[in-house]
Amino acid sequence: MPELKNDRLLRALLREPVDITPVWMMRQAGRYLPEYREIRKQAGSFMALCTNPELACEVTLQPIDRFPLDAAILFSDILTVPDAMGLGLFFEEGEGPRFSRPVRSATDIDKLPVPDPEAELGYVMDAVRLIRRELDGRVPLIGFSGSPWTLATYMVEGGSTKNFSIIKGMLYNEPAMLHRLLGITADAVIQYLNAQVAAGAQALMLFDTWGGVLTPRDYMAFSLEYMSRIIAGLDREHEELRVPVIMFTKGGCQWLEAMADTGADALGLDWSTDIGEARKRVGDRVSLQGNMDPTVLYAEPTRIRTEVADILRRFGPGSGHVFNLGHGIHPGVPPEHAAAMIDAVHELSAPYHRPS
Amino acid sequence: MPELKNDRLLRALLREPVDITPVWMMRQAGRYLPEYREIRKQAGSFMALCTNPELACEVTLQPIDRFPLDAAILFSDILTVPDAMGLGLFFEEGEGPRFSRPVRSATDIDKLPVPDPEAELGYVMDAVRLIRRELDGRVPLIGFSGSPWTLATYMVEGGSTKNFSIIKGMLYNEPAMLHRLLGITADAVIQYLNAQVAAGAQALMLFDTWGGVLTPRDYMAFSLEYMSRIIAGLDREHEELRVPVIMFTKGGCQWLEAMADTGADALGLDWSTDIGEARKRVGDRVSLQGNMDPTVLYAEPTRIRTEVADILRRFGPGSGHVFNLGHGIHPGVPPEHAAAMIDAVHELSAPYHRPS
Repeated sequence: MPELKNDRLLRALLREPVDITPVWMMRQAGRYLPEYREIRKQAGSFMALCTNPELACEVTLQPIDRFPLDAAILFSDILTVPDAMGLGLFFEEGEGPRFSRPVRSATDIDKLPVPDPEAELGYVMDAVRLIRRELDGRVPLIGFSGSPWTLATYMVEGGSTKNFSIIKGMLYNEPAMLHRLLGITADAVIQYLNAQVAAGAQALMLFDTWGGVLTPRDYMAFSLEYMSRIIAGLDREHEELRVPVIMFTKGGCQWLEAMADTGADALGLDWSTDIGEARKRVGDRVSLQGNMDPTVLYAEPTRIRTEVADILRRFGPGSGHVFNLGHGIHPGVPPEHAAAMIDAVHELSAPYHRPS
Repeated sequence: MPELKNDRLLRALLREPVDITPVWMMRQAGRYLPEYREIRKQAGSFMALCTNPELACEVTLQPIDRFPLDAAILFSDILTVPDAMGLGLFFEEGEGPRFSRPVRSATDIDKLPVPDPEAELGYVMDAVRLIRRELDGRVPLIGFSGSPWTLATYMVEGGSTKNFSIIKGMLYNEPAMLHRLLGITADAVIQYLNAQVAAGAQALMLFDTWGGVLTPRDYMAFSLEYMSRIIAGLDREHEELRVPVIMFTKGGCQWLEAMADTGADALGLDWSTDIGEARKRVGDRVSLQGNMDPTVLYAEPTRIRTEVADILRRFGPGSGHVFNLGHGIHPGVPPEHAAAMIDAVHELSAPYHRPS
C-alpha cells in the first residue's frame, strides 16, 4: 500500500497532534455535485451505483478531486447488510428504501443468516480495494455501517417510517425477540466492518441515524449496547495506525457520556449541542466530529466562514476535533459553499494547533 | 362561571399539592377516536372543523366525555394566527398545511398586520367561550399557540419542510429581517393568548414544535427569546388561580435550564430525557409535563401500565408533574390503550402525593 500522505484525520481521531483541523462532510459524494448527478444518471439507479465498484469508486473520489478534504468515505448504502441477509432491498423513485421481506416474527428472525462479506457483499469489498488503490495515499478511507438499531428499524418496518410504530411495538411487547434480531445484526455488522478493514478501510464510522427516537433507557439497551458489542468485536490493529471508530447517534447528544464509555475513539455530534460543552462532558476520552448545521451552507460564504470560526473557537485549542457537518450535506447546496467551509476550517484552525 | 370541580392540572402546574397526578394527552381530540373521525367527515375539512365553534367544542369535549382526563385543550390549529395575518392557509388532502402567500422579503414582513383576535379570530374565542360553558367546570380548559419561531417556519417556508432551508437561509443571511418577523409574530401571539384567557382559557401552552432544529445559540436568540417576551406580555391574573403557562420545545431537552428561566410555570418534555434527571436540572423553578413515548400506546395495556409506573417513579414524590405523552397521540392507537394509560396514572400516582 502507498504511504498515507495526509494522516490528519486519523491523528485527530486518536487525539494526536495535527497541524490544522481535518475536515470532511457526511454525504460528500452526493447530489450537490453535478459530476455525481451525471454518474448517477448513467448508472440508472442508486443501487446500480452502489453495487458497481468502478462507479462507487468514481463517486467516492469526486469530492476528493474537487476539494482539499482530509478523508474519503466509501460510497455505499447502510442497507447493504440487511439486503445480503435476504430481505430484498429496493428503491422506488422518489421514495425511500424498501424491503420486500420485512422481519416481523420470531420465525423471520430465526431464518436470518449472518452474511459472509467477501462472498455476499463482495461488491463493497471490491469498491474498498479499488478506492484505496485510486486514492494512492492522498487521504485515508473511512468505511462504515448502520448501527444494529438503525438497520433493524428498516428491517422491521419494511422501509422508512415516521412513527416507528411496528418496531416500537416489538420493543415493548416482544423485547427478547428484538434483542435476538439486534444480536444477529450486530454479528453481521462486525463481520462486515472487519472485512472492510481487511480490504483497506482506515477508519470506521457507525451511523445510528435513528437512536435518537428512543428513550434514554431504551437507547442504552437497544442501540448503544449493540454498538458497544460491535466495537469490542472489531479487529482494529492494522497497518501503522490503529483503525479508529467514530460513533454517531443523530439526536443523541444527551447521551455523550455513555457513548464515550463504549471504546469508540470519536463521537459524531449533530448541531443541537455546543461542541465546547460536549468536549467538557467527554473530556479526553474521545475525539469529537462535527458539528455545523448543514443549512449554514445555504448562507453566503462570508457567513459560512464566521460559523466555522465560531465552532473552532468553541472547541478550543488542541487535537481531537474533526470538522464536519452535523448531518449529511443537503442536495441543494452550491459546491462553492462547501469549498468555502473546507478552506475556512484549514485557514482558521492553525492557531489552535500551535505548540504552546 | 361554574366552580372548577377538578383543579389538579392547575395545582400541579403551580406546584401546589394534589391528591393524584393529573393527566391529559397532546392531540387527545384527534383521529384515534372514532367519534372524532365521524365529526371530521361531517365537517368536510380540517379547517371547517377548526373554524366552526360548535364543532370545535364538540371534538374538544369528546375525550373528556370518554376518559377521566384532568384537562381539556382547545381544538384548533397553530396556524390560525398567520392565517389571520393574511397568508392564506389551506390544506391539500394528504399534505401538510400550506400558505398561498409565504413571507420571503422585508416588504412581505412590513405588510404583516397584528390581528385583532376578537375581530379576526373570533371563531377561536367563540369556541373557547362555548367549551367553557359546556365543560361546566368539570376540568380546566387549556388554550394554546404555536411559538413565533415555529409559526415563522411555516410562514417563510410556505408549509411543512424537511430541511428548513429557506428560513435558515434567512436566519444566516438576513437575521435582522427574521427578528422583525418574529417580533411581529410574538406581538400577535400575545394578543391571541390574552384574548383566549379573557374568553375563558384557564392555562396556556406554547408549542415550539421546531425549536429543536436550531443550534443552542440560535435557539436562544430566535425561539426562546420570543417565547420569553410572550410570557412577559401575558395578562395571567384571572379568576381564583393564576393562569399557568406550559412551554414545550420538541427536541429541546438539552436546554431545560434556560427554558426554566423564562417565567414559564411548566416545561413540556419529549421522551428523550429521563424525567427524574430533568427534575434535578430544573429544581423547583418549574413543573414538568410529560413524558411517555407515544408509541408505548401501541403496546399491550399491562406494558403501558409498567411504563406509567416507571415514569411516576422516576419523577418521584411531590407535586409538579402533569402526566402526558412526549408528543401527540398517534392516529392508529386503540382508544382502550389511552384509557389504560390514564387509569394507570391515577391509580399508581396516589402514593407519591401522601403527606409524609
